Parts: sequence; C-alpha cells; structure tokens
Amino acid sequence: MKNIIVGQSGGPTAVINSSIAGVYKKAKELGVKKVYGMVYGIEGFLDENFIDLDDYLSDKKNYELLKTTPSAFLGSCRYKLPKLEGNEEVYEKIFNILDKYEIDAFFYAGGNDSMDTIKMLSDYAKKNNKKQKFVGVPKTIDNDLPIIDHCPGYGSACKYIATSLKEIIRDNSSFPQSRLTVCIVEIMGRHAGWLTAAASLAKGKDCEGVDAIYLPEEEFDIKEFLKRINKLRKTKSSIVIAVSEGIKTSDGKFVCELSSGDRKVDAFGHKQLSGTASTLASIVAEKTGLKTRAIEFSTLQRAASHIASLVDVNEAEKLGMVAVEAANNGDTGVMAIVDSLGNTSTYDIHDIANVEKKVPLEWIDSKKKQMKKEYLKYAKPLIKGQVKIKYKNGLPVHLVRK
Amino acid sequence: MKNIIVGQSGGPTAVINSSIAGVYKKAKELGVKKVYGMVYGIEGFLDENFIDLDDYLSDKKNYELLKTTPSAFLGSCRYKLPKLEGNEEVYEKIFNILDKYEIDAFFYAGGNDSMDTIKMLSDYAKKNNKKQKFVGVPKTIDNDLPIIDHCPGYGSACKYIATSLKEIIRDNSSFPQSRLTVCIVEIMGRHAGWLTAAASLAKGKDCEGVDAIYLPEEEFDIKEFLKRINKLRKTKSSIVIAVSEGIKTSDGKFVCELSSGDRKVDAFGHKQLSGTASTLASIVAEKTGLKTRAIEFSTLQRAASHIASLVDVNEAEKLGMVAVEAANNGDTGVMAIVDSLGNTSTYDIHDIANVEKKVPLEWIDSKKKQMKKEYLKYAKPLIKGQVKIKYKNGLPVHLVRK
Repeated sequence: MKNIIVGQSGGPTAVINSSIAGVYKKAKELGVKKVYGMVYGIEGFLDENFIDLDDYLSDKKNYELLKTTPSAFLGSCRYKLPKLEGNEEVYEKIFNILDKYEIDAFFYAGGNDSMDTIKMLSDYAKKNNKKQKFVGVPKTIDNDLPIIDHCPGYGSACKYIATSLKEIIRDNSSFPQSRLTVCIVEIMGRHAGWLTAAASLAKGKDCEGVDAIYLPEEEFDIKEFLKRINKLRKTKSSIVIAVSEGIKTSDGKFVCELSSGDRKVDAFGHKQLSGTASTLASIVAEKTGLKTRAIEFSTLQRAASHIASLVDVNEAEKLGMVAVEAANNGDTGVMAIVDSLGNTSTYDIHDIANVEKKVPLEWIDSKKKQMKKEYLKYAKPLIKGQVKIKYKNGLPVHLVRK
Repeated sequence: MKNIIVGQSGGPTAVINSSIAGVYKKAKELGVKKVYGMVYGIEGFLDENFIDLDDYLSDKKNYELLKTTPSAFLGSCRYKLPKLEGNEEVYEKIFNILDKYEIDAFFYAGGNDSMDTIKMLSDYAKKNNKKQKFVGVPKTIDNDLPIIDHCPGYGSACKYIATSLKEIIRDNSSFPQSRLTVCIVEIMGRHAGWLTAAASLAKGKDCEGVDAIYLPEEEFDIKEFLKRINKLRKTKSSIVIAVSEGIKTSDGKFVCELSSGDRKVDAFGHKQLSGTASTLASIVAEKTGLKTRAIEFSTLQRAASHIASLVDVNEAEKLGMVAVEAANNGDTGVMAIVDSLGNTSTYDIHDIANVEKKVPLEWIDSKKKQMKKEYLKYAKPLIKGQVKIKYKNGLPVHLVRK
C-alpha cells in the first residue's frame, strides 16, 4: 500500500483516538508512505480536508498522548452516504479523490452508521473493479455492534459509569434516613441498555450498589417503579437508581416524553432524547413526597479519558492495527473484531452494518431489576487496568489538531 | 485530653474524610484515649450514635484509604442548633453527653452552617464555665468561608471541574461548524461563584477553554448572553459556556426560575436550585435555532475523589491535625485556617461563622466574561498533584462504615 487514509465518524469516545494511533503505527511498520487523516470524517473527505499524521505522530510522546486524548482527534461527522442509485456522482467523487492522493486503503472508525459507509464504499469498489480496500475499525460506547464480543470505547465508558456511581452512592448515603434522597441517574443508550447495565459493576464489598437498573430492552412500568421506591424507603437511607435514556412505557412512548412532548430527530432519524431522569425525579417527588435528585452523565461518559480502561485503550489500538494488516493482506468490506479472550480477526461488514446488538434478556433479572452474573462475567474484564495519564499543572494533557 | 469526638456536617466533599483522618492521627500522637466519631453529625450526637475510630483507623491501610474515600465517612446532617434562649435543654443535653463519655474536645468539619454550631457550643461553654473545647475544621467545596485563604474540598472540586471541562470541550469540538452545539455547563454555587470560576482553569496550550463564565456575583443579562452566542457562532465550531446555578437576572430572580417557577427551600432557608443550564439551553435553542446541550456536574463535583487534588487532600488532613493541636493547647471557639502559602493556624470562630466570602469583583473580567489572572494565580496551586488511588478490579476502593 502506498498511501492510506483514516477517519472517525459518529459520537466520539474516550479511546477512539487510540484506534487512529494503531492504524498509524501498523501502516508505518508496513512501510506505508503517507497516512492521511480525514478531518470531520467522510464529510471532510469530500472537501479534501486532510492532514498528514506524520506531522503529529512521528513524535513518540505525541503518539502516546493521542492514546489518552478523548473525543475525535481528527474530528467526526454524522454524514450518511446516500444510496448508490441516483447518487453515482458522490461515489465517483470519492474514488477520484482516492486516486488523486494515491490512497490504497480507507479506514473508518465508528459504530453502526460508520460501518454502513464501509459497506457502501466496498460494495461500490467491488462492483466497479476499484482496487482500494475499505476496512472498518469498531468504536462505540453503545456496544451495540454485532459479531464483535465488545466494542472499543465501551469498557472505558463502563469504568467511568461504575466509578462515578460508586462516588454518587457514597455521596447520597451521607445523610440519615430522615433526609432520604432518591437519586436517579440517567445513562446513555437509545435502544440497547449496555451502558446502563454497567451500573451493576459499582456493587462490591465497599459499595451496596444501585437499587435498581432499568434498561430499554424491557418495558418500563411506572407503577412498578413507584412501588419499588416505596418498598425501598422503608429500610434504606439512600436510594440510587440507574435508568437508560431510552426506556419506554407499554404504549411505546419514551419516558422523557411523558413530560416534555415529542423531540427532534437527528440526521439518521434517531430521536434526540434527554430528561428521562428529571422526568422520573419529578414524578417520584410528586407521588412519594421524597426528596429527589436527577443526574445525567451526558457526554462525560464518552469523554472521560482520565479514567479510561487500560484494557480498552490497548484493544482500540490493536484493532486499528488489525484493520491495516487486513487491508494489506487484500481484505476489504470487513471490520476488525475481538473476541472475549482478546483474540482479534476480521468479519464481513454485511453482517455488521445496520445491525443492532441488544443486551440478552436472559442476562437481566427482571424481578430484582439487576443484572445477572452472566453480564458481570462479561463486563468485569473490560474495565481493568488504569491508563498512565500525563498531567501538567494538575490537569490531564491532550493532543490537539492545530 | 482524655477522649475527643469528631463529626461532619453539611454537604459532603471529596476530601472531608481526610480531615477526620487528620483529627484521629494527631489525637493518637497526643495520647488521646478514645477518638469517637459521631454518626450523622450533631443529629447523631444527640442520639449518642458514636463509633470508636480505632475500630477502623488503627489499621494503617484503612487510614490511607479513608483519605481518598469520598463523601462523609461518618455521615452528615443539616441540623441547625436552635438559639440558646428558650432551648437550654438541647444545650444541657449536649454537655451531659460530653460529660458522660468524658469528652474533652469536640471537632466539627463543615462550612458556614457547621461553624455556627462551633460558635454556639463554645459560647455556651464559656458562659457556663464548661471545660470542653470546640474547634472547627473547615470543609466546603463552595470556598465561601472568610479569613481562610481557601477551603479544603475546593481544590479537588476545581480539579474535577477543569478536567471534565477539558474533556467536554474536546467532545463538543468533534463536529464541523455546520453541526455547532452550544454546550452550557452548570456548576454549583448559590451565592458565591468560586466553583464556576474554576472553569477558567481548563484553558491552556492544549485547550481553548470555555467561551464565557457567568458567576452569581454579577447580574445575569439574558440579552447580553444571546448576543455573545450569536457573535461566537460566526467564528467558532464549538461553544462551551460555564454558568453558576445561582445566577440571577436584574429583577433578582434565579435563571432557573424563568422556566420552572419557585422552588422549595431547605432546612436553612436556602432555595433549592437546579436546571439553570437546561433553562438557558432551551432559551438558546428557541432564540438562535442552534443545537444545545445542558450538562450539570451535580454531586459529582463534590464526590469525585478519584481525581482529587493531592494538595487538597494533604491540607485537609493537616487542618484536622491543627484543630486537635489547638484544642490540646487550650484553644476553643476557633477554626483551623490555612494561608496562600500553606501555613496553618487558628482564628476566632465569631469572625467566620455565618459570613459568606464571595469572588472579588476585581477578579472578574465583566466584558469578556472570563476570570482575570488574579484568580488563576490564586487557584492554580490548589489543583496540583494527583492522589494515589487504590484500585480493585478496575475501580477505586473506598472505606465504608459498617
């Protein structure tokens, strides 16, 4: 391969930059001349908004810094490639640009929507006898890609969620029962409850854990919810409950819509959600008279690289390397994957793009509203190890595009 | 001193337990027999809800663990002692309990309201020739105690705020200008803007910093705010603004009341606030058509001990020790204090209790809505150094009361 290009797409994570680092590392090992970074994903690609990664990463210190820099170093986008039919000129433009820069392989780090881009481009290349290779690098805190055991980004988000919940649980249990507060913590996840399930990791010898976990995989019953709180208040001096932003009632309505009406949709047609915890906190305050508090982890759960999982950062880097190796071996239309033991390989993108993996129902204890041991066994290895953060004047240092 | 007792009151912090550790350490050095901990502050004291700190802290590992455990290990309360006149029986009860347990000194870690307790009890003791000493140990993330240069708890909260803002700023700048998001981050502080001022610490070589900072020390002008955003959107692809929960408009109304009506008040008559960021985010979305996001740090800013400041943790411990030394030397009705160079001493509680220290107006750049260099010089030393956290299975370990 003479030159290659790498980009990022979709929501940023704490470790997606580690994948970019991995792509760069392996490419340089293989003697690739130029490793281009597309700024703002495929959207920037169409504007030929490229940088030469040598300018940043040939310095070994910068390389290490990139691995612990949050968000998308290259910038991201939410641009969805149009269907081929009737939009041939977009595809022709992309391949003209690839030819112009003598780019032999295109790597895209992202989740479901980003893998759709890899599928579309590799399909077009095959159909039109183009030589360029297209390989996906998995990245999503949502952990909802199929085939792969777990997605880079998920482990670090889990570590942030469990660490923060341990601290919130301590905070919420400061006061005696006479000042009981019901603390409702909202965690990201529209349809899949993977991130909210990580709330179960907080429990241990030094932490009583959250009192209930509500995932979007199960219907949300407000009566059951209030009944549970009224039972808990009899014995506990602190109640902390984790809810997924995407929980829905039996009539298919998002809980946050109970108070705030319908929301806007994003470019992919996803509903923009927020306010599930505050909606529930208001209902609980009104129906029980208890003091309530709503907490949203918001973007912190995908950006807190200062508490990233070492296992996750290293896997993200490794999968970037695996993707480059695959393209170098002639693979295209595939995504780099990892199994539960950390073994890596690649898989056909057609079985991955646009397929959403949810939390298995048999891992959820519906009665206790807790995760079963199968989930804990799955998730515990993903949060292990602490990254070494470079600090300056008491704050973590990041690598930033000029 | 034969026996002593220590308690915590008010909102918990990331380092208040380090003060309890300091009290224990110095007392043991001085040969104190029993160091009692009152569970749930003065409220638990009245119920004689005591623990013997030897049961936890004679183990050196536990002692170190306590220093990095968030929230109030002993439990806290928001109980305000009634005025002496007409409530003599409460005071008599307290002194009877002190006599019963042969307690010679009473230490209370907290902020303004807690120092009021020390004042009331030491005044009563003097008036009634009681021998017991009463010494305050400063603790408040709000940093609003007078006389003392800065309060234990503040530095760690600043470090959390600046670290999280650096991550949020990276996250928010992922997308091109066409997807510009106005991110409004709400930080604690009813009347004093100390915590919100810490947003200024995020700025550095690797971070553009927040675009504006709004403190409660200055009147909030919604027109100026919208004008600023409309100016920023012309050149920036990301806008991040820090606002204090307690900002008020010219008619004296809290911003969060603009949308949600009047709020409840707590036991001390403080208004319970929340929703300043979401109120502003809604207004910005409506008036500018821009995508907005509201983030509240909520209790995380006072509980995130995993990113505590080493300077802060050590000072909290030291001030606990200073308090015990003072009582041992016969001092009462005082609070342990620290100056800007880390020198410690004690000060008359009457000049401290119920006095609120605000951010000096001359430290605020009203036009740019930024903090001036005087604030940066003041705050930068407080966030220095990282604590060594004990991790188990990828999560920080805490010391918890049985």
